[in-house]
Amino acid sequence: MTVTLADLNRMDLVAFEDAVGEAFELAPWVAATAHAKRPFATVRELHTAMMDAVRAAPRDTQLAFLRNHPDLAGKAAIAGAVTDDSKREQASAGLDALSRDEFSRFHSLNDAYKAKFGFPFMICVRRHTRDSILAQFERRLPRDKATELAAALQEVFFITRLRLAAKVTGEGAPEVNGRLSTHVLDTHAGRPAVGVAIELYELTGERYHSLTTAVTNADGRTDQPLIGGRPLPIGRYELRFAVGDHFRRRGVETGDPPFLDIVPLRFSIAEPEGHYHVPLLCTPWSYSTYRGS
Amino acid sequence: MTVTLADLNRMDLVAFEDAVGEAFELAPWVAATAHAKRPFATVRELHTAMMDAVRAAPRDTQLAFLRNHPDLAGKAAIAGAVTDDSKREQASAGLDALSRDEFSRFHSLNDAYKAKFGFPFMICVRRHTRDSILAQFERRLPRDKATELAAALQEVFFITRLRLAAKVTGEGAPEVNGRLSTHVLDTHAGRPAVGVAIELYELTGERYHSLTTAVTNADGRTDQPLIGGRPLPIGRYELRFAVGDHFRRRGVETGDPPFLDIVPLRFSIAEPEGHYHVPLLCTPWSYSTYRGS
Amino acid sequence: MTVTLADLNRMDLVAFEDAVGEAFELAPWVAATAHAKRPFATVRELHTAMMDAVRAAPRDTQLAFLRNHPDLAGKAAIAGAVTDDSKREQASAGLDALSRDEFSRFHSLNDAYKAKFGFPFMICVRRHTRDSILAQFERRLPRDKATELAAALQEVFFITRLRLAAKVTGEGAPEVNGRLSTHVLDTHAGRPAVGVAIELYELTGERYHSLTTAVTNADGRTDQPLIGGRPLPIGRYELRFAVGDHFRRRGVETGDPPFLDIVPLRFSIAEPEGHYHVPLLCTPWSYSTYRGS
Amino acid sequence: MTVTLADLNRMDLVAFEDAVGEAFELAPWVAATAHAKRPFATVRELHTAMMDAVRAAPRDTQLAFLRNHPDLAGKAAIAGAVTDDSKREQASAGLDALSRDEFSRFHSLNDAYKAKFGFPFMICVRRHTRDSILAQFERRLPRDKATELAAALQEVFFITRLRLAAKVTGEGAPEVNGRLSTHVLDTHAGRPAVGVAIELYELTGERYHSLTTAVTNADGRTDQPLIGGRPLPIGRYELRFAVGDHFRRRGVETGDPPFLDIVPLRFSIAEPEGHYHVPLLCTPWSYSTYRGS
Repeated sequence: MTVTLADLNRMDLVAFEDAVGEAFELAPWVAATAHAKRPFATVRELHTAMMDAVRAAPRDTQLAFLRNHPDLAGKAAIAGAVTDDSKREQASAGLDALSRDEFSRFHSLNDAYKAKFGFPFMICVRRHTRDSILAQFERRLPRDKATELAAALQEVFFITRLRLAAKVTGEGAPEVNGRLSTHVLDTHAGRPAVGVAIELYELTGERYHSLTTAVTNADGRTDQPLIGGRPLPIGRYELRFAVGDHFRRRGVETGDPPFLDIVPLRFSIAEPEGHYHVPLLCTPWSYSTYRGS
Repeated sequence: MTVTLADLNRMDLVAFEDAVGEAFELAPWVAATAHAKRPFATVRELHTAMMDAVRAAPRDTQLAFLRNHPDLAGKAAIAGAVTDDSKREQASAGLDALSRDEFSRFHSLNDAYKAKFGFPFMICVRRHTRDSILAQFERRLPRDKATELAAALQEVFFITRLRLAAKVTGEGAPEVNGRLSTHVLDTHAGRPAVGVAIELYELTGERYHSLTTAVTNADGRTDQPLIGGRPLPIGRYELRFAVGDHFRRRGVETGDPPFLDIVPLRFSIAEPEGHYHVPLLCTPWSYSTYRGS
Repeated sequence: MTVTLADLNRMDLVAFEDAVGEAFELAPWVAATAHAKRPFATVRELHTAMMDAVRAAPRDTQLAFLRNHPDLAGKAAIAGAVTDDSKREQASAGLDALSRDEFSRFHSLNDAYKAKFGFPFMICVRRHTRDSILAQFERRLPRDKATELAAALQEVFFITRLRLAAKVTGEGAPEVNGRLSTHVLDTHAGRPAVGVAIELYELTGERYHSLTTAVTNADGRTDQPLIGGRPLPIGRYELRFAVGDHFRRRGVETGDPPFLDIVPLRFSIAEPEGHYHVPLLCTPWSYSTYRGS
Repeated sequence: MTVTLADLNRMDLVAFEDAVGEAFELAPWVAATAHAKRPFATVRELHTAMMDAVRAAPRDTQLAFLRNHPDLAGKAAIAGAVTDDSKREQASAGLDALSRDEFSRFHSLNDAYKAKFGFPFMICVRRHTRDSILAQFERRLPRDKATELAAALQEVFFITRLRLAAKVTGEGAPEVNGRLSTHVLDTHAGRPAVGVAIELYELTGERYHSLTTAVTNADGRTDQPLIGGRPLPIGRYELRFAVGDHFRRRGVETGDPPFLDIVPLRFSIAEPEGHYHVPLLCTPWSYSTYRGS
């Protein structure tokens, strides 16, 4: 159920809270404070008003607000005692399908975190992979409380930005999506490489998980971005291109076995809202790649 | 124990057979025929004379000669009933350390091959990896007998060329060794990349076996070739370069996590006596490689 | 003055000839023959019908038709005795501004051509540079008459295709335009290179003529194609990129003088209706280019 | 006439001054001071002792020493009133073959310089091209006297280092030579490009002066460095590679005219004693270059 910004601007407090209050976990006061700031020219302004309400709240209120969030990968997520939004988000990084070991690792990190800071570990899971969530735990645990309170609120703001972008349509939608794309140029022929099979993997520890496959079209590109319409999860990836098959189809001499067969490009994504274009320029004997635009 | 070509040229038949007869498995007649062709100006000529003796032999003698060779990965290799040379060679491709499944796969392929052709599967294992031996089995099993007899003798000639190159010193040694090398150029700084950790893997099926590690020196090269002083085993390889650490040491902004961290270059070797130079030119945001010289 | 295909399809013979007859130089019979084939679903079909009229004509008629064309760079072009279309086309390759030497060279080649073939040298000048026109003269003069008659008619068809594309609007316009574009990627920073000055030159003999200048925008591209909206003249070009200034603005150490300052990319265009994308990927110490898509 | 370091170490003052005194223009006291520091373990130590003598001299002596040097491109060089070393060095940058305009430009800059600083403009011309000498004039004229005195002495030290390196043989020769080299790799074939014609130009203003030509050998390299055995003159250069001919000989389809024919690589040299390796990796449709090692 989406709502238009125009309708929101006209709503009374009850309707307004009903429409967007849930974006901020169990904190209807955020929506109430923002309601007084209507009308909003853009969805970004609406989000800013809600963030400002949190930023302006006394420290105890902020802490109470954070404490209302579910434990990441914790019991609450299993027992279903949280909002539907929370559940969907935790599923997105595979946190609903942890192994027993992973579950206890996350759990014990989360416990250490809560013991130190007094609120659960906040992270916008749709912007992360399992590996980067773990890396965040390890980076943030040693911090002092003031720094970490700010970091936790920033994560809440990432989460709520995504929620508002999904719920509210209208002018000035916040930029919440990134794009991962590629193209393959056959510099042996001076033409786009057509029909090249591509597979995208995510690295989790030392294991590769296949995320998607594609085949290059007449322009050497894929019809759809490899990842699009969502934040790019921070993490490590590998693209594999079946260039050996491509040159074999073209009848080009490439060695036996071919010098290049499956070409892997391994890279990391650090900016979930960025555009990563990772092309492959290749001959049977050479290739290059770059972060393009 | 090596022998000089000059000494060989002066030897009587008994001493000559004793010195180089074993190069051709259980076939002293090969050395005897070659003995009559002395003196040899080069080690290559000695090998040619021995190959000519085999080529000139009647087909039945050739077949008997091939039948005297041990089964690849077979009982003979385990029981120790073959020449020391054979044992060393079979160890080099890891054929002395097969899993039970691999052992029976090799065994059954070998049986099918012997049943069809009447002699054991010949292959110069030092020029191959396990995967390429398997690929050879599958390529050669369907062939007709005349084609395969020629292929089997060619493999014997590769084997004996290596044996002679190891035993006989002097002018005109046959070229039996290849070289795999690399270098890393930091095109962000316009200088060789110094201190970059490199690891070379062989691919067996979908598994990677680490073969060697190295660190680039002041010239961006490795002090030793990654593989040298031997034939390059035909097969698939992956070089991994720790470029993320390199740019971190230089204090260059590379993203968090860095766009490029471990860069893998995957390629195949098809020419065991060739020179494969596989360099990496890289910045924190791009790289290229090629088969160089 | 353009005309729509729909209107053309409804015109009587007189109006039709008036509208598109001039496309075929002094040959109203071409339009008359085509008129009988109405209606045309596409502009391409109209052109095909007109070409078919020429192809179906007796050889003498074809020769007479060719003889009606003005001499390239000849007196007719100077005296103004030809159609306006002819004049505009000859100006486009700089043929209206020849030096005295060039003028006599073209003139004497043209005379030799006419003496041999009995009709003037036909070439679609908008698809050529001065150099490639000269190269065409030298390639075509030695040919036999039948081959050259076909080549001359093909050039007429290129010319008339452009004329029709300019005069007739509607479905299925013939593809007459090419595109030359570029972009600059700073692989030192992993970003498009913004604000890089670019100059495009045409090579005439050993001289460079500046055709256009541009500056890269926020996406590292130029706001307009370097050449677009017309056929790309066959010939030699050089793009020059002021990358030294770019890295100086970024404060990057590049040497004194900088290793790379003005980077020239020299290339030829062979397909006037093609898309040539000629990008530059560069650091202060390296660069690469390719024919992209 | 060279002399060995061992002999120098044994010489009395008169012989010593006779052997190396001329290295420092009309300043036998430099050699005399250095003579007292014998023996020298390396030629570099000898040069250091002579530089130390200059550095330790009173400012007036240093100025007098500088004033004894000939005007660059001035009357003295024409009239032959200077040492033979000076004449040879000024010829090396083409300063003995200036046009009338260039001569007066150099002359008037030199006059302005002398008027301001009280000594002639010093520059080690073998480390420079005409353009970089002019650039040095413009950079150094605005400086204050102390800075420029140090710069002038540094240039004298470059000059005398070259003179000593030419005169004295033995251990620890100073590094005075650079090297410019290239190689051409055909990444379309995965092999060195053999037989590619290369021409090296120096840019003077907007003009190109051909310095040398070469053809790639079986390894894709040139038999000799493009510049070697001397300092690399600071300046702008262009390498041109006839890759169109190369691919035509190989019978590769490259377009008509070929997309790439003569590939120019334009770069500057900033370190006269450095190694500049400027290779070309190319296909008919792409190429790259970099400063290699």
